[in-house]
Amino acid sequence: MQRALTVTRERFADWYQAVVRDADMAETSPVRGAMVIKPWGYGVWEQIQAELDRRIKATGHENCYFPLFIPLSFIAKEAEHVEGFAKEMAVVTHHRLKMIDGKLQPDPDAKLEEPLVVRPTSETIIGDAFSRWIRSHRDLPMLINQWANVVRWEMRPRLFLRTTEFLWQEGHTAHASEADAIEETLRMLEVYRAFAEDVLAMPVIAGAKPENERFPGAVNTYSIEAMMQDGKALQAGTSHFLGTHFAEAQNIRFQNDAGGMEFCHTTSWGVSTRLIGGVIMTHGDDDGLRLPPAIAPRQIVVVPMLRDKPEDTEVLKYCEKLVAALKREQAFGQPLRAFLDVKKIKSAEKRWNWVRRGAPIIIEIGPRDAANDAVTYMRRDSLRDGDKVKSIAKPRQEFLEGAVQLLAEIQAGLYAEAKARLDGNIKSGVTDWKGVEDYFAGSDEEFKGWLQVSWSRPTGAELEAVEAKLKGLKLTIRNAPLDQPKAFAPCVFTGRAGVEEILIGRSY
Amino acid sequence: MQRALTVTRERFADWYQAVVRDADMAETSPVRGAMVIKPWGYGVWEQIQAELDRRIKATGHENCYFPLFIPLSFIAKEAEHVEGFAKEMAVVTHHRLKMIDGKLQPDPDAKLEEPLVVRPTSETIIGDAFSRWIRSHRDLPMLINQWANVVRWEMRPRLFLRTTEFLWQEGHTAHASEADAIEETLRMLEVYRAFAEDVLAMPVIAGAKPENERFPGAVNTYSIEAMMQDGKALQAGTSHFLGTHFAEAQNIRFQNDAGGMEFCHTTSWGVSTRLIGGVIMTHGDDDGLRLPPAIAPRQIVVVPMLRDKPEDTEVLKYCEKLVAALKREQAFGQPLRAFLDVKKIKSAEKRWNWVRRGAPIIIEIGPRDAANDAVTYMRRDSLRDGDKVKSIAKPRQEFLEGAVQLLAEIQAGLYAEAKARLDGNIKSGVTDWKGVEDYFAGSDEEFKGWLQVSWSRPTGAELEAVEAKLKGLKLTIRNAPLDQPKAFAPCVFTGRAGVEEILIGRSY
Repeated sequence: MQRALTVTRERFADWYQAVVRDADMAETSPVRGAMVIKPWGYGVWEQIQAELDRRIKATGHENCYFPLFIPLSFIAKEAEHVEGFAKEMAVVTHHRLKMIDGKLQPDPDAKLEEPLVVRPTSETIIGDAFSRWIRSHRDLPMLINQWANVVRWEMRPRLFLRTTEFLWQEGHTAHASEADAIEETLRMLEVYRAFAEDVLAMPVIAGAKPENERFPGAVNTYSIEAMMQDGKALQAGTSHFLGTHFAEAQNIRFQNDAGGMEFCHTTSWGVSTRLIGGVIMTHGDDDGLRLPPAIAPRQIVVVPMLRDKPEDTEVLKYCEKLVAALKREQAFGQPLRAFLDVKKIKSAEKRWNWVRRGAPIIIEIGPRDAANDAVTYMRRDSLRDGDKVKSIAKPRQEFLEGAVQLLAEIQAGLYAEAKARLDGNIKSGVTDWKGVEDYFAGSDEEFKGWLQVSWSRPTGAELEAVEAKLKGLKLTIRNAPLDQPKAFAPCVFTGRAGVEEILIGRSY
Repeated sequence: MQRALTVTRERFADWYQAVVRDADMAETSPVRGAMVIKPWGYGVWEQIQAELDRRIKATGHENCYFPLFIPLSFIAKEAEHVEGFAKEMAVVTHHRLKMIDGKLQPDPDAKLEEPLVVRPTSETIIGDAFSRWIRSHRDLPMLINQWANVVRWEMRPRLFLRTTEFLWQEGHTAHASEADAIEETLRMLEVYRAFAEDVLAMPVIAGAKPENERFPGAVNTYSIEAMMQDGKALQAGTSHFLGTHFAEAQNIRFQNDAGGMEFCHTTSWGVSTRLIGGVIMTHGDDDGLRLPPAIAPRQIVVVPMLRDKPEDTEVLKYCEKLVAALKREQAFGQPLRAFLDVKKIKSAEKRWNWVRRGAPIIIEIGPRDAANDAVTYMRRDSLRDGDKVKSIAKPRQEFLEGAVQLLAEIQAGLYAEAKARLDGNIKSGVTDWKGVEDYFAGSDEEFKGWLQVSWSRPTGAELEAVEAKLKGLKLTIRNAPLDQPKAFAPCVFTGRAGVEEILIGRSY
């Protein structure tokens, strides 16, 4: 059977690279660890950004923009934060270049007095603004979001999943009470869950990270975790309750009702271009990417079957009318994104380009369709009937009337497929370490899914021992799902009474 | 008379700072030269971005994202480009921090082999991608745009006008022929002109920059120039025809129809957050900012006159109904942006906040309005009648039916006012250097406007002499308007035959 890709999901890592490349999503750049996001990949990001931005604004947050550079002294203020990020920071030390001995280099006379760090995240610089903006309880809650690029030096980069520079949004909020800040942390976690499931069609488990996986400086970190088609977990978004740690380090205080001064309770939360990697590994198949219609930059692509013959004019006219009619429709609350592909390459090449890129509906119009007032199309979610590509023919009017519904059906189908995979591959019932070892025995490459086990929530050195034990099997604790049972089996690590269930698995 | 600002436009520089601050647009940051863009300022940028992005896409361009960091060797490839930017580049030299002797500092063991430059502009890194992406004439034109932050080290920063980091879009295109590339350069200049005039209500003169003001590496640079209320020019956007300079430095070639290899002709063009400075200095008055409705984050603000009394409920209900009805309207092709201000501060304070921020229409609703089914509003473009604030009362239904038209009228009025200022303050008829000196004699702070004079378009050392002469009067050549007369007076600098008219003036 001929596939649109040269690699199948059996070699999952190679397959992922092939999709990123052949779907024109991104490529590595000459700068180690950084990527070039190509038009189709960036188009997906624009859709993600637009819809998530609406949801972030609908929950009362306003967008701002803060500086890219952070004075070193700001980072140094919060000890755990320094510890967590010092190893991966890009540092600006000079502000001028000079030709010296025929070689362009940093000008020694333009060395900065204080080095500047390229933001790995903006808690410290936004905290500094909060300390000036917040005076009284009437200024709270302060609800800010920023869309920006951030840099974390990566030794083993991977396109979209782990790159030195990536794009993200980072929310930062300050509250008068601990309860308000915790409520905000969980509210944004829920925004992420709903966004991942409803828009990306990517089912996730929302829960709390164990102590050792918390954001540097956080009291509590929550995440949404998605299961990729190789059974590994992808942390797809995080929301942090920061307590008063950053407020104390940066003097973010407010005057309460009674006139006394109190520290604010702060939160931060973010999702990044990593989501695109999640979409690829959740929905892609052996023919390439399959995009959920809600985020497809082009939801319905029309390919005219041109043959350099006089009837081409009629075909093109028919296609233009079709695209115009589709654009008048509304899908997922936005104008339907239809596109007529008139590039001067062969129609067959166009078809396979759109298959690889995952356009949800691909229409091919030849002279016979134009003459019969018909539409012949492929659904990318169910491209084949056995080995053969499945084309569906319909009267134009019928197709037009059903197009929005068809997109919704594809969106729901992709979600259902991924949801069945997630639900079917979280195993319970393992109650001791031996069971964990047995479950994850065999090759790393084998599909394993996750185990949901009970634990006694050890801390400190005992937790480190658990971490090391898991690491031996290349496992990590993903999170403790928000949804917990009432009673617990004994802890699989310590044998003591269980207090919580956690998910363990391999991960990106 | 009481004004919403403490400074008037008579002290223009101080007035500008006061507007930026009191309209909650931006503030200086602890990082020298960088700014924090606050929610209202960022909201204006979001409107600018959304509308300009639609226009850039409508002319066939696609968005991408390229790395923030550029290897030093890339910059070094184009000699003029190096020369132009070396003085203002932020340079990353390390990728890790380390605690040494109790002090956090760049880790000497993590020094980069090749320093990375934080992009001042992306010709070189995008050119590198083009050299890989372009193979044949069928790949051309290649039409790319990027929304990004860039860094140019500034010694004398000024919020929005000149900051070390700023936000912008940069278009980069490659073409098979010189004619196509020049056509693209002028097409995007026209997109900028139309955007500035139709959306920002900021009239501009489009024209070619003189040789000495060209972008480093460009064959020709075009600009749009706007006149601020102090008579100075603001370069508000540029479009560059780069010839084959960058293509030769970076080997951007294509196979032509006949099978031979040719260098591409490239262009680049950009506008930045500087536009916001232009909007402030074009439309602001002694009460603060006046925003053109097309880019106002909130076009109609409703302030309920609450008095902690039982009738507050009725007032609020009436306001909510009003805002909901307004939001159902379409203004400038988008849903009307109406906002109900329920912040817990005094109504008078709210009014003046919105006056300073320049919301185009401010509605105040008290119990009497609610009872009479009426609307009382202020127009920000004509706030006062003599010294007093002018409130207009209308039946609700009548106001609703006229709201979209009223916004369009405000937009047109702001444009007309600025257009009269521009047209009335470009003086012709000066034919010698003495006339130039006389015209610009007196204090720098005095309103002067621009002179349109004829010149012989000197080059090289002769042009440098002209530049120095102008600099003595703090003048620069702004551009040679696209629209030129048929005959020319003698050159004001050389006395030789004129070949072109140019605009000269003071500038930002």
